[in-house]
Amino acid sequence: MELLKKKILENGKALNSEVLLVDSFLNHQVDVELMNEIGKEFARLFKDAGITKVVTIESSGIAPATMTALHMGVPMVILKKSKSAILSEDVIQTEVFSFTKRTSYQLTLKGKFIEKGDKVLLIDDFLAQGEAAFGGANIIKRAGGEVAGIGAVISKNFQPGMKRLRDAGYRVESLAPVSHMDENVIEFEDDDE
Amino acid sequence: MELLKKKILENGKALNSEVLLVDSFLNHQVDVELMNEIGKEFARLFKDAGITKVVTIESSGIAPATMTALHMGVPMVILKKSKSAILSEDVIQTEVFSFTKRTSYQLTLKGKFIEKGDKVLLIDDFLAQGEAAFGGANIIKRAGGEVAGIGAVISKNFQPGMKRLRDAGYRVESLAPVSHMDENVIEFEDDDE
Repeated sequence: MELLKKKILENGKALNSEVLLVDSFLNHQVDVELMNEIGKEFARLFKDAGITKVVTIESSGIAPATMTALHMGVPMVILKKSKSAILSEDVIQTEVFSFTKRTSYQLTLKGKFIEKGDKVLLIDDFLAQGEAAFGGANIIKRAGGEVAGIGAVISKNFQPGMKRLRDAGYRVESLAPVSHMDENVIEFEDDDE
Repeated sequence: MELLKKKILENGKALNSEVLLVDSFLNHQVDVELMNEIGKEFARLFKDAGITKVVTIESSGIAPATMTALHMGVPMVILKKSKSAILSEDVIQTEVFSFTKRTSYQLTLKGKFIEKGDKVLLIDDFLAQGEAAFGGANIIKRAGGEVAGIGAVISKNFQPGMKRLRDAGYRVESLAPVSHMDENVIEFEDDDE
């Protein structure tokens, strides 16, 4: 998505070869008009996938997922990050390790919000190691839903997440697949065009 | 806002006289078309306030704040909940006690995202005790901004937050001011019409 790549080049900053700072428009200050365009683009990419629900992981995925769900005309569901295990029949959890924060959390869903037959589009701001996406997919399937697609606003394709998810059979679309970066340069792959 | 009150009466559930469950459309599963209407309504209510930024608190405020910012044509800023104090010149923090979770967190902002002269609309999903709103207002003012308005999707007006904020001089608008509730009934005030 050219508009997004341009924004990353103009306003993003690679702190090193692994950390991309985009907090001026994506995950702290949010350019909502850009989120609107991102929502339109995900809706276009997955328009034939029969999506019945958009699911995201709190909290940086919520703004782009809101706009995606709006343009697709379906509800959104937010998977919560809980510190502890919740013992309840209705609650589905899976442990996710965050490489960024070097700690684990319990990704949490009230089961009734994804039903058997739901075709789910999982949206997140970043795809890097793929831990959060695999955790989300695990929960969606245990609730009875089908993961019909995974959408990342930005993917760091030099990290293993993208390949792991595609190898596992998921359809993954990234609006800004970064192939390489360091303090001086951010480069994108062209494979989403 | 009649559409929202109707939704609360049909799909919300008062667990007792203090806890209102709205996780089927506001803070777990999210009715994004309703969020769109909520955004339009906040934009209408504050259209003459000269708002330059919408600020919210992660994570349940993000969806309605995204739509509000979109309809107002301004950026959104998400105040983060951090577990620990961050020592950095650029970071502004204040401790907020959550009555719901019986624990405190550090509400956190990178100072550059609110500038001197910014007129801020602070949006959150719930207004109850007012602790989060006072914390947010504190941070916005320390960053150099002015709190031009506070918008709550739902306010529990039988708890002290609404009165405390208005007594402190803030303009506060609630789209669904609950005056009383228990397991059998949810009643609204009419003062926002």
